Amino acid sequence: MTKPALTLPRRWAILACATFLGAGLLAAGASAECPAGAVAPAVMPLPAHMQPSGGSLPVTATFSVAVRGGDARLQDALGRLLRLWEERTGLTFARTPQGRFASSAPAVLEIECESPGMAVPALGEDESYAIDVEPAHAVLRARTTTGALRGLATLQQLLQGGADGWCLPAVRIQDGPRFPWRGLLIDVCRHWQPMEVIKRNLDGMALVKLNVLHFHLTEDQGFRIESRRFPKLHELGSDGLYFTQEQIREIVAYAAARGIRVVPEFDVPGHATSWLVAYPELAAGPGPYEIERRWGVFDPVFDPTNEAVYAMLDGFLGEMAALFPDPYVHIGGDENNGKQWSANARIQAFIRERGLKDNAGLHAYFNRRVHEILARHGKKLMGWEEIMQPDLPADSIVHAWSGKDSLTAAVRRGYAVVLSKGYYIDLMQNAAEHYAIDPAAAQAGMTEAEQRRILGGEATMWAEWVSPENIDSRIWPRTAAIAERLWSPGTVTDVADMYRRLAIAGSRLEEAGLLHEKNRDAMIRRFAGQQIVPATLGELCTLIDAIEPLFVYQRRRLQPDVTQFMPLTGLVDCARPDSAAARSFVGAVEQGLFGAPSFPAGAAGCARSLGAWKSAADAVLACRHELPRWNEIEPVAQALQRVAQAGEEALAALAEGRRMSPEWRAERLAALNQSAKLPVAVRLPMLPAVRLLVAAASEQEHRAAMTPEAWRRHVQNLANAPAANQPAP
Amino acid sequence: MTKPALTLPRRWAILACATFLGAGLLAAGASAECPAGAVAPAVMPLPAHMQPSGGSLPVTATFSVAVRGGDARLQDALGRLLRLWEERTGLTFARTPQGRFASSAPAVLEIECESPGMAVPALGEDESYAIDVEPAHAVLRARTTTGALRGLATLQQLLQGGADGWCLPAVRIQDGPRFPWRGLLIDVCRHWQPMEVIKRNLDGMALVKLNVLHFHLTEDQGFRIESRRFPKLHELGSDGLYFTQEQIREIVAYAAARGIRVVPEFDVPGHATSWLVAYPELAAGPGPYEIERRWGVFDPVFDPTNEAVYAMLDGFLGEMAALFPDPYVHIGGDENNGKQWSANARIQAFIRERGLKDNAGLHAYFNRRVHEILARHGKKLMGWEEIMQPDLPADSIVHAWSGKDSLTAAVRRGYAVVLSKGYYIDLMQNAAEHYAIDPAAAQAGMTEAEQRRILGGEATMWAEWVSPENIDSRIWPRTAAIAERLWSPGTVTDVADMYRRLAIAGSRLEEAGLLHEKNRDAMIRRFAGQQIVPATLGELCTLIDAIEPLFVYQRRRLQPDVTQFMPLTGLVDCARPDSAAARSFVGAVEQGLFGAPSFPAGAAGCARSLGAWKSAADAVLACRHELPRWNEIEPVAQALQRVAQAGEEALAALAEGRRMSPEWRAERLAALNQSAKLPVAVRLPMLPAVRLLVAAASEQEHRAAMTPEAWRRHVQNLANAPAANQPAP
Repeated sequence: MTKPALTLPRRWAILACATFLGAGLLAAGASAECPAGAVAPAVMPLPAHMQPSGGSLPVTATFSVAVRGGDARLQDALGRLLRLWEERTGLTFARTPQGRFASSAPAVLEIECESPGMAVPALGEDESYAIDVEPAHAVLRARTTTGALRGLATLQQLLQGGADGWCLPAVRIQDGPRFPWRGLLIDVCRHWQPMEVIKRNLDGMALVKLNVLHFHLTEDQGFRIESRRFPKLHELGSDGLYFTQEQIREIVAYAAARGIRVVPEFDVPGHATSWLVAYPELAAGPGPYEIERRWGVFDPVFDPTNEAVYAMLDGFLGEMAALFPDPYVHIGGDENNGKQWSANARIQAFIRERGLKDNAGLHAYFNRRVHEILARHGKKLMGWEEIMQPDLPADSIVHAWSGKDSLTAAVRRGYAVVLSKGYYIDLMQNAAEHYAIDPAAAQAGMTEAEQRRILGGEATMWAEWVSPENIDSRIWPRTAAIAERLWSPGTVTDVADMYRRLAIAGSRLEEAGLLHEKNRDAMIRRFAGQQIVPATLGELCTLIDAIEPLFVYQRRRLQPDVTQFMPLTGLVDCARPDSAAARSFVGAVEQGLFGAPSFPAGAAGCARSLGAWKSAADAVLACRHELPRWNEIEPVAQALQRVAQAGEEALAALAEGRRMSPEWRAERLAALNQSAKLPVAVRLPMLPAVRLLVAAASEQEHRAAMTPEAWRRHVQNLANAPAANQPAP
Repeated sequence: MTKPALTLPRRWAILACATFLGAGLLAAGASAECPAGAVAPAVMPLPAHMQPSGGSLPVTATFSVAVRGGDARLQDALGRLLRLWEERTGLTFARTPQGRFASSAPAVLEIECESPGMAVPALGEDESYAIDVEPAHAVLRARTTTGALRGLATLQQLLQGGADGWCLPAVRIQDGPRFPWRGLLIDVCRHWQPMEVIKRNLDGMALVKLNVLHFHLTEDQGFRIESRRFPKLHELGSDGLYFTQEQIREIVAYAAARGIRVVPEFDVPGHATSWLVAYPELAAGPGPYEIERRWGVFDPVFDPTNEAVYAMLDGFLGEMAALFPDPYVHIGGDENNGKQWSANARIQAFIRERGLKDNAGLHAYFNRRVHEILARHGKKLMGWEEIMQPDLPADSIVHAWSGKDSLTAAVRRGYAVVLSKGYYIDLMQNAAEHYAIDPAAAQAGMTEAEQRRILGGEATMWAEWVSPENIDSRIWPRTAAIAERLWSPGTVTDVADMYRRLAIAGSRLEEAGLLHEKNRDAMIRRFAGQQIVPATLGELCTLIDAIEPLFVYQRRRLQPDVTQFMPLTGLVDCARPDSAAARSFVGAVEQGLFGAPSFPAGAAGCARSLGAWKSAADAVLACRHELPRWNEIEPVAQALQRVAQAGEEALAALAEGRRMSPEWRAERLAALNQSAKLPVAVRLPMLPAVRLLVAAASEQEHRAAMTPEAWRRHVQNLANAPAANQPAP
């Protein structure tokens, strides 16, 4: 799916080579010449082609920019970039009276934009750009405004400071996206997410070059958009928490200014309780309906046999078609359990009379009708993979979310497809797991035309367990790794380097206005209460940095009675996915046990982590009277204490070459089992690595006699033997 | 100015006694009965009468509220309070289908509100309330909705948690304000402050019972409100940064819902450059004019001899009169330097012809004309003390800001007066300094009628040196101390207890949405750059917590070339006024040197502080290559290093009873002088206390022979002797 290359001076041609992608190489080249303290650029997503060219361009108060071509979006984005640089550097750049950047004046940075491109971004827009930074001058070239915006996002990340000042490292970049559809779904229904959440996340998307906001606007739990034709929809279906049409226009414009499309989703015929609160007569089952307050798959569904349904959808979708400029409208179509249809004799008769075969056939009939309606309003249909019924019109897009092979099946049947399976960021997986998912993985054996139908992917921020306060920490920075998967060449797969750059992207995202860091700190302060002393607060933060929210399906089992009203301010809501502290520990254990010939290589790092966790758990457990939410904190601190204790014992034995007994191992593994099952919806991600330490400590004298692979298997088997997983008696 | 007491059951009468105000007493009473871990309530402002009554009322998921009387504002405020409590506690309270609180159902908390009171709050509204919390039941009574809102702000602060759960301590409160005008001025002109800044600060004001937002909307540096009659005003005078009339209505409603008035200020005839950008023909001097980008007092001024000026003001103020419901309009009137008037022969001729005597007479003439205009639109005039010219109409309010005796003079001449001198929070003083200022201090010898003319005071957040990012840390929590001065009885003067409660108020303000904590952290992260490691970041925070922004007048001398465009993201902008770390150290030094008979009593605390600062300075100074804004950090870290070094030497000598030589003293004091004059706009607030340590260490053998007072004088003299204040050679 690589876009056609930008027409560029010939010298670029020799750089279009994957071997130049390694960040290590770049580091070696760039850091030698930049001011003291400057390091390798950490652009995310990694550009398709990036090559250091020696030296650096100082950025001082006399920095200037000239712009040729492009439109007002480019001018505005450049103004935002320079303000952000001023805030980062403390410099004050010169200003033009009208705040516009001239096209003719000589300048340090020149931006050349061949044409404005599409006024509202759409699928297929040329997003490629090239940057050439030399020691006295820089150029950004793009074919379209959108391409230039992508280049500015790269420049934003290139500026770096050292004790001697600020600079752009001299570098040559030629870049363009691998996939044209790179989205983030935000569900504003399960928990309402107001305007400022959407805007700051659009800023984050722009920074990592995502280009589709998939706006999930209707659900069982809320109807979140104003309808002027059917005002009862938002009046009765939203608790007053919805976007006005004026706000929607503001969001669409805000997104377009950042080169981002907005694809709205109106989920039908299922996931539709909030519609049916206002229009129970359109449901397949008897009403009345209330806004759903719990999570799951619910029965309420439209009645596809009722012509009034299509009349309403025609009116409503016509209204929405005028509001959202994008050619695509997502109609959901997922998780229709069919119960109301099966229970309704008239509907079953309709299926028989029309020869629709079954509920699935009825769903297909419904989709065709909705497709006709959309077509009448100039829109194309997109839907979750369940819409892939016979006769689904060929211009529809299938959104693969659940089934293993739905992407391949859709492509084979001629549909364009967008992948979300593997990108469900609400599940609370590690960035590396999402990073490993490649939409193109299935393309072996596909024709070129088939491959081209794989449009890209979307991260999905389902909102059962997120509030406006912590949604940023669920989206960011992990989604930057997904953004890289969708933008950068498929050869960019170095997980360690991804994590190195992801941490820096996290800082850049905060600078861009995201709240994943500061809201987490404030949440911990609230959780800790007003009596905690700063030192203990620090220990509590260490503890919370070591844990992760439970996988969402496990959390739901632990908290089955949750409603939309439950405040999301507990320990699990403060904790963030993909603990860096745990990851670093796990890496050190892995290296120590299986990488080096004997353990001590990684021992210091492991001991530091375990010591910090032990100390944090001890300190927190001493604060029973200061911590008001004790019932959440106590079992977790105790579990962490056990884990740190077992780990420290194992580590000491490994360091001293002292063999621990099988009885000790069994006891410790049993204690760790206790720590694996908590009454609070968090987990200890370092726990499996501590199990390995415990197992290895009891068997270390066998290591020398085994092949590395046999040793690893042996330790893993011992650590995870079924008997070892029994709770302590 | 005590409001008439609420009609309450007789038992209240015996509680109306100032001796019950002490927090210590309350602590002893309440903490014995509340769940383990609960402490004395820390309500701010301290209620007029508050008495623990034994035990506590548990707050659980079955907590319920019934409301009798009041209006929708009370219902909404109660909804916000309960949501905030849910977020604090993790509890989910039961909900009514319409989200309204019934009046008849039995409930744990009953709210009785005699009447809705004024629909839009105005001067003189009854704000009193009474709270009675018993172990099974609580009542809040008020005469008006506004009074009930004040009671909810108290309840919000009463809820506390311990390891055994959440409770309201059993307490009887009878409360009402000492002064009816308790304001916060926010200048949105020097630096634009958008909607969200205003809203969250209104929430903070409501929490500490401030009741006037003084909205400073026009200045030399910006015209920040839409005029539909004279659109050139905001179009040319604001860089596009202004409030639309719709937004103003939203702010007024948001404030009214919290019992807060909005008094707009349109500053004339001086401070008016931004008006004259659009209408240079109305100026006293020749144009054209540009929006002023620097700070200070500027020449541009309206021409009071030009009838077109009054025609425009009539149109504009008429438009504004319809927008702002409050009867008062603040017309500024300050700092008119008269230069353009003096330089204009026609204006000077006008003064002679009309017998106005001089520029002051002309200003008085102008004010009378503006007063007539306002009266025509149903509004009364308020202005800065310079408006107090002969013939100022008697219903005007004088706003005392600068002159020593302007408050007294205004009162004597029959004007109502609001005090801001002493409450200039932009100056970067300590809360204690503001807390010591009492508007009623001058009332000795005044008649009762004169005393009643002292309406209250206003904290002033002038915005030369604040951005939307750090404005909260300049306003809060210090303004809570001013709010207490204006609300609580004049007998509430315990500074230590004020600071104890202020720290807790700071947490409550964060909970209410203020960003003084989390934006400071994010600013430090940005300042530190992306390469700093977490441990060093912690040391940098320790350093920044030890310093304070320079007094504003000194900062202006240090940064004379600053413009409106300079980013406010430097070290000084990260630092916060009134360093708690420094305050605690200064208190320990004071106690050690002058409180106890010999030093070691406070030595441990002092040594801890000095050790932490030394370690922070050392760590930061080792990071030259990691800290991009090195030129700001290096001199400050070096200065702190010198201070900690001198302090540690002195402390060791004091602890060991070892006399240091006069030469050592002279050297150390000279080194400290270097630390007092920094090229960065921050100061080291612990420095004077370290000077005392150094002086004492060289003289300690004389202590026993001196009276405590003589010893103190001796040490102070040595520490501050002119010779000691010379820089090192």
